Amino acid sequence: MPSVRRQLIVVSNRGPVAFGRDAEGRRTVRRGGGGLVTALRSLVSHHDVTWIASAMSPDDRRVADEAAGQAVDEVAQDGSPFRVRLLVHDAQAYDWFYNVVANPTLWFLQHYLWALARAPDIDNALHNAWDRGYVPVNAAFAAAALEELERQPGASVFFHDYHLYLAPRFVRAERPDAKLAHFVHIPWPEVDLWHVLPRRIRAAVHDGVLANDVVGLHTRRWQRNFLRASEELVGAEPAGGDALAYEGRRILVGAHPLSVDPREFEELASSKPVLEAEEGLLAQRPERLVLRVDRTDPSKNVIRGFRAFELYLGAHPEQHGRVGMLALLDPSRQEIPEYAEYLGSIQRAARGVNDRFQRPGWVPIDLRIEDNFARSVAAYKQYDVLLVNAIFDGLNLVAKEAPLVNERDGVLILSENAGAYEELAEWALGVNPFDVAGQAEAIHTALELGRGERRVRQQGIRDQVREHDLHAWIEAILGDLDRAREDPLTPEEAVAFQA
Amino acid sequence: MPSVRRQLIVVSNRGPVAFGRDAEGRRTVRRGGGGLVTALRSLVSHHDVTWIASAMSPDDRRVADEAAGQAVDEVAQDGSPFRVRLLVHDAQAYDWFYNVVANPTLWFLQHYLWALARAPDIDNALHNAWDRGYVPVNAAFAAAALEELERQPGASVFFHDYHLYLAPRFVRAERPDAKLAHFVHIPWPEVDLWHVLPRRIRAAVHDGVLANDVVGLHTRRWQRNFLRASEELVGAEPAGGDALAYEGRRILVGAHPLSVDPREFEELASSKPVLEAEEGLLAQRPERLVLRVDRTDPSKNVIRGFRAFELYLGAHPEQHGRVGMLALLDPSRQEIPEYAEYLGSIQRAARGVNDRFQRPGWVPIDLRIEDNFARSVAAYKQYDVLLVNAIFDGLNLVAKEAPLVNERDGVLILSENAGAYEELAEWALGVNPFDVAGQAEAIHTALELGRGERRVRQQGIRDQVREHDLHAWIEAILGDLDRAREDPLTPEEAVAFQA
Repeated sequence: MPSVRRQLIVVSNRGPVAFGRDAEGRRTVRRGGGGLVTALRSLVSHHDVTWIASAMSPDDRRVADEAAGQAVDEVAQDGSPFRVRLLVHDAQAYDWFYNVVANPTLWFLQHYLWALARAPDIDNALHNAWDRGYVPVNAAFAAAALEELERQPGASVFFHDYHLYLAPRFVRAERPDAKLAHFVHIPWPEVDLWHVLPRRIRAAVHDGVLANDVVGLHTRRWQRNFLRASEELVGAEPAGGDALAYEGRRILVGAHPLSVDPREFEELASSKPVLEAEEGLLAQRPERLVLRVDRTDPSKNVIRGFRAFELYLGAHPEQHGRVGMLALLDPSRQEIPEYAEYLGSIQRAARGVNDRFQRPGWVPIDLRIEDNFARSVAAYKQYDVLLVNAIFDGLNLVAKEAPLVNERDGVLILSENAGAYEELAEWALGVNPFDVAGQAEAIHTALELGRGERRVRQQGIRDQVREHDLHAWIEAILGDLDRAREDPLTPEEAVAFQA
Repeated sequence: MPSVRRQLIVVSNRGPVAFGRDAEGRRTVRRGGGGLVTALRSLVSHHDVTWIASAMSPDDRRVADEAAGQAVDEVAQDGSPFRVRLLVHDAQAYDWFYNVVANPTLWFLQHYLWALARAPDIDNALHNAWDRGYVPVNAAFAAAALEELERQPGASVFFHDYHLYLAPRFVRAERPDAKLAHFVHIPWPEVDLWHVLPRRIRAAVHDGVLANDVVGLHTRRWQRNFLRASEELVGAEPAGGDALAYEGRRILVGAHPLSVDPREFEELASSKPVLEAEEGLLAQRPERLVLRVDRTDPSKNVIRGFRAFELYLGAHPEQHGRVGMLALLDPSRQEIPEYAEYLGSIQRAARGVNDRFQRPGWVPIDLRIEDNFARSVAAYKQYDVLLVNAIFDGLNLVAKEAPLVNERDGVLILSENAGAYEELAEWALGVNPFDVAGQAEAIHTALELGRGERRVRQQGIRDQVREHDLHAWIEAILGDLDRAREDPLTPEEAVAFQA
């Protein structure tokens, strides 16, 4: 249990609920999707939360309009009350914000996805999308947060992710004494990569995030990159431990890996939808199952995973017919061309492997493109090998969720560029995500490990995740916020740092 | 003049001379090509040089065979004697070394050129090319250097570039007391990029370079990246200033930008071939000339340069018919598919711009794919704007050479990712190489600058290059070698660092 009940203004692009309508036209409320929202939902049970998010659908917008832009009262599944304030953005501005700046630009940059020889071409389209999309949408989030701060002057504001790098700066400008925290759920790349963005944009990103009192990232690696980039791009200075001094303020930069609620997954594992999905899987599963569960995002490295499995099959004909790969892929951001193309490449790659090896009664790669969480959890229970080979990944929650419910002492193969690797390396088989030969070897090694060793490895991951669960993550961030406020720069330090 | 005449064993993949045959079948010797060889040639005038390089042609191999693998005596154009030792490699091993590891892998990595979502696929082909190509070719260079050290035990060995990262380690293993220096002529990327290579390879690269007493890079940026990567990948430790401690030795890591011999370019400018080429240019030149001179290497960013020029022309119809771009591109590494494809893309991109804008008497982009140094120097004299917009570039000598001989107070537009930017930023128009809108604006700004300001900027570059010329660069590296030997770790430090 948290020590203190707090007033929190949570700000994220995607909200905790999505409004809709049932067949009779009555309003419905369902839980919002996405890992971030799932992770933050438990905040509502322990704190006094007002959640600011974008209205995503016509029904969301209708709710926002009926409330005249104010927050509305909602009740979480466990009965906890909270408030939701949905922002209706100009559609064109939101498109620039989301489909030009946030996803193809910031997400690609922060996952090292660009082929710099050819992309990006930063032209007036990006400059325009920044000025007329990312900036005003961030300003709208900040304006809403400022209104909520009027109502609850003692509240802390907790921003999330790469959509909102500028909002803290707008809040800070109006409320120099506000308590602001920001968690970045994706990798923070090194400074040379930030140089891909025009100077004014890369500076504004770092300046905006440094307007917070607390900045959280998943790993020491992203933390180190953020500290260095802040020093080199906007002149922040080291201020003891993991802190930076910037414009006379001290900013705590923490490395706090997100986690999951183990009880939630244990309950899910025996829920009706999961048990039904599991029956279907059991009827079809190969003797030994290599699983991947991802969005169809280029950062997830699906194609190299297939290629590694192909190399494995090529080297181990004795396993043909016995080992199969199940790829459960949630289609992602199909309105962005790079994502649509990537999905096509995934399908072609799987077909290539199957054409080469399949025979009656055995298809090497079972590719399912669908959003089916129950099936994913069922597959979590059934894998012998879980392949997480992301090119770069802020954390990767699958690597924490799946071992909690797995029933076959399955082995985790984990990319050394996934944030979770910092925590789980000891119990996983680490792979270089670019080294398909190494991944093929890891698949073989994982399938050959004895049951005893597999069990020890799986138990190690479970213990780690249970001890460092979602609750501990939230407390760590909020604890940083307390520490930051207790330990401002002295006037002398502030003067020295500003000089 | 250098203070001391030294015994130097220079080791580089490409040698200072190339052997051939004239029409009567008699052996000929011509100067080897490439910027590195040009830069190092002057070493021969001031020092006692033995140069070890790969035999590149059948005639090179015949010379090597006739000398039974030993060095042969040669005489430089200024009459200075030196020795050349050509290594005959196994053809298959050399192909792996050069066409799999050195160029598509190390060069691409060190210029940030990979589209990590799709490339590289590190498979057994790379592991094999490393083990059976890069390693043995480096071992052969080391064996030759060791034989020359037998002959001249007091000599220093001076390795060059990304072809030879392992050779110093092989030499050090046999001769713990040898004086070894290495200059890396290309960028050193940040540590996350090195993670693209398998662990054993990225570790071997850093371990190999750290076997030297002195490591040189062009800029403080590459130096910083090398220091950090050495600490993080192989556990080197800071040892005061720009030094690292590693395996009980102190290694000086210097930032010394390569330069040119200004007198050589002044003489070239009035040489007959250049004057003839200049006549041709003058007969065809547009009123105002935007020039680029590059190899057709993806790192040079030719296509974004064309796109920027297209944006400029689109925004300034009043300049149609008056401003033209001349692109002198030396075809490069066409045996590597990425390079062949890139050349095709360059041609298509130029045609696209010309199709859109050209009219009788005016072709916007005059694209010449050829290796014609005289024409390049002639164009150096004639440009109004010189565009150097490399994605990443170790230094970029064109940015130093061309202003020395330019006769029109031409303006340098310079990528902030070219090493030369650290020295020349004050007098250039800096651009982000990915920001085509920014480059279009820079072209406009450059063409609108008044003559007075243009002259001041050009003079600034000339003064900088004359003061920091090639001779100063050589002395800086050799000076580091003296400093490194004078200041070894104390036994106590060595023990502490090894602990």
